[in-house]
Amino acid sequence: MRAVDIITKKREGGELSRKELEYLLAGYVQGEIPDYQISAWAMAVFFRGMSPQETAALTEVMLRSGRVMDLSGIPGPLVDKHSTGGVGDKTSLVLAPLAAALGITDPMMAGRALGHTGGTLDKLESIPGYRTDLDEKTFRRLLLADGFAIAGQTAALVPADRLLYALRDVTATVESIPLITASILSKKAAEGARALVMDVKFGSGAFMKGKSPAEALARALVDTGRVLGLRVSALITDMDEPLGNMVGNFLEVEESLDCLEGRGPEDLMELILELGARMAVLGGLASDAATGKDLCRDCLAGGEPRRRFLANVKSQGGDPVQLLELRGKYRSAIQAEVRAGRRGFVRRIDAGELGLAAAGLGVGRNRTEDRVSPTAGLQLLRKRGAAVEKGEPIMRVWAGDRAGLEAALPRLEAAVEYAESPPPQLSTLIWKDVS
Amino acid sequence: MRAVDIITKKREGGELSRKELEYLLAGYVQGEIPDYQISAWAMAVFFRGMSPQETAALTEVMLRSGRVMDLSGIPGPLVDKHSTGGVGDKTSLVLAPLAAALGITDPMMAGRALGHTGGTLDKLESIPGYRTDLDEKTFRRLLLADGFAIAGQTAALVPADRLLYALRDVTATVESIPLITASILSKKAAEGARALVMDVKFGSGAFMKGKSPAEALARALVDTGRVLGLRVSALITDMDEPLGNMVGNFLEVEESLDCLEGRGPEDLMELILELGARMAVLGGLASDAATGKDLCRDCLAGGEPRRRFLANVKSQGGDPVQLLELRGKYRSAIQAEVRAGRRGFVRRIDAGELGLAAAGLGVGRNRTEDRVSPTAGLQLLRKRGAAVEKGEPIMRVWAGDRAGLEAALPRLEAAVEYAESPPPQLSTLIWKDVS
Repeated sequence: MRAVDIITKKREGGELSRKELEYLLAGYVQGEIPDYQISAWAMAVFFRGMSPQETAALTEVMLRSGRVMDLSGIPGPLVDKHSTGGVGDKTSLVLAPLAAALGITDPMMAGRALGHTGGTLDKLESIPGYRTDLDEKTFRRLLLADGFAIAGQTAALVPADRLLYALRDVTATVESIPLITASILSKKAAEGARALVMDVKFGSGAFMKGKSPAEALARALVDTGRVLGLRVSALITDMDEPLGNMVGNFLEVEESLDCLEGRGPEDLMELILELGARMAVLGGLASDAATGKDLCRDCLAGGEPRRRFLANVKSQGGDPVQLLELRGKYRSAIQAEVRAGRRGFVRRIDAGELGLAAAGLGVGRNRTEDRVSPTAGLQLLRKRGAAVEKGEPIMRVWAGDRAGLEAALPRLEAAVEYAESPPPQLSTLIWKDVS
Repeated sequence: MRAVDIITKKREGGELSRKELEYLLAGYVQGEIPDYQISAWAMAVFFRGMSPQETAALTEVMLRSGRVMDLSGIPGPLVDKHSTGGVGDKTSLVLAPLAAALGITDPMMAGRALGHTGGTLDKLESIPGYRTDLDEKTFRRLLLADGFAIAGQTAALVPADRLLYALRDVTATVESIPLITASILSKKAAEGARALVMDVKFGSGAFMKGKSPAEALARALVDTGRVLGLRVSALITDMDEPLGNMVGNFLEVEESLDCLEGRGPEDLMELILELGARMAVLGGLASDAATGKDLCRDCLAGGEPRRRFLANVKSQGGDPVQLLELRGKYRSAIQAEVRAGRRGFVRRIDAGELGLAAAGLGVGRNRTEDRVSPTAGLQLLRKRGAAVEKGEPIMRVWAGDRAGLEAALPRLEAAVEYAESPPPQLSTLIWKDVS
């Protein structure tokens, strides 16, 4: 077998066998196949795509490149949720304890902020003492104790994905549906989940700008999952505007607590209930999404998810009492306001622009090695559709230093679009249900 | 400027600017842009193609990656011929002295055998003493003295092409029309040619198997040449069967001498006259191809091209007297014959298969570091259309060792196809004239 022949086969539109993919990817991880052949192959995949069988084989090859979490003996159902990333998206912080309260075990491996998107790990680590670098033994123990645990991917899990992703990032081969699919599913299979709810976002604050690639990814995730024996259900959701009112690390922990207390912002609550409903269905706790939604609503109202969340904070090194005391107070030193540039209506708040400006404040990072601020961020005081007077505050901003603030303010102002008359209401965040 | 943005632009079908191509390729030669980005870019070019302007810019960037032969003061017209490679194709050995005899200066930089195709340098070097590693000063001196010189590309010329070609070879990005075009034209521009006749071959013995990619390459060469101010005229010619009767290094030198003496095989003579005619037109010595062809025929008949050839042999280190003495005798030790497997007609001799078998005898090489034999090879005693009796010799074969011969014989036998009745005559080798 020669790498160049495998690349040629894909370039000509052929379907690669498991053996060929294994030769290529396992060889790459072992340093036998050079990166210049893998990047050429990835570009050929970008143009030619992959069948669900092929994507599943690639996922398995990647999965087998490292350790797989052993969750034998952990009572199921093992269901996780994953999002393609957005701005103000703190649903994971609510869904994991909600699922646990429903009787689902959620072995959640989450990611970090990058570019305009936030990261679940960064948000949780803004809680003083909270640690996400759990070893496998601790991860298992916490799953048994609390019904969920939230950890970063260890270096031993799916090394092929880390290597391949770093290469794709610099060779313009990130935006390939089968490569994204294999990356997501290999990590989710490695963490031990047996069913997965995918939140595939589209819009300016999402990785996929358009509905059509989002739908293609959702379809690939569901179809490839089926080949792998991993049940996947996907929602395609709007991420053109920020989700909820808070964008920041501790700020989003606070808003998650609001949701757990039944008083989160409407758009965020809607998404949490819809995603939770699918987790309930996949977990065998509800026969359909509508029933699942009612179940989630009732469960949240009962307070058990909030209790589970605080228990997890304690389990992962934080202090629940201190967390509740810091609420509303734990903010970066410099506070400022963004004011409406004119009288009228907020027509749109561009999530992508807002996310980049927030990253500049320290909420996120441009390079993986950058550090984030726990306390920087912003609160949206007015959102899409709100009537505003000129000069009225529309955002509150917290920054660690003056220079960062000065750089962020014009970008934040520019992210808000106005109109003379009220914009049409967004009917729902949920565009499509793919399963 | 970032390499990943340039790759993305090409991936999305954009036209790269000269600045972008320079950033990428000059950076690659200088070791600043890694090979994994170049291979991803090359694969994107494979799928998206390049405009003539873009291909011209790439050619110039590659050209400027190294030295350019300074032919100032050399009387023109400076016209060269280049072929995409074939089996039994010794036209360069005849055309360079023919062009010189017509008053054209031909600064010919030629290549070596690889895979099934032969190499002009290997053929000439089979003449004892003949050297093709000419420095620039010697190259100039010989051009002035003999009207032509034949050299290998020095390391200083177009280093970007050597690097890029080696990378394309292992990343399945060889078969890209614009990349092939830039590779050919950058080398031809670097050698100092101002006009170029391209022999673009198709068929089993050619790099391009089909007529349609051959035509696309011919079109790209002519159009890109125009943007560069390099006049290019292309013939698309049949390379499904070997050209002439001899396949081997010294064997092909002998057949070239036959042609220079006006008694070469018909197919070979036809191609030489057609290509020579275009050289005459580009050199301003003939108003059209028909006139050019007459001019070439007369010139060969006058004997001056033969005299120029022998003068060049002397100039490049060989001994013309010894060459003529070796004629018909300089052969590998072991001689064998391939005999007709049945009574009937030779329907086809597969040039690709024959070329690979000949390479196995030592005529060519599988890897660039392999050495070739000056004296191994074969003579076709019967060609397409010939009536044969079972057991009648159809090829004479010379091999340096028994093992090589035993391996080659079944392949040579398999390269010959038979039929009950005579196959339709090939009307002409020349399929299309592109300019």
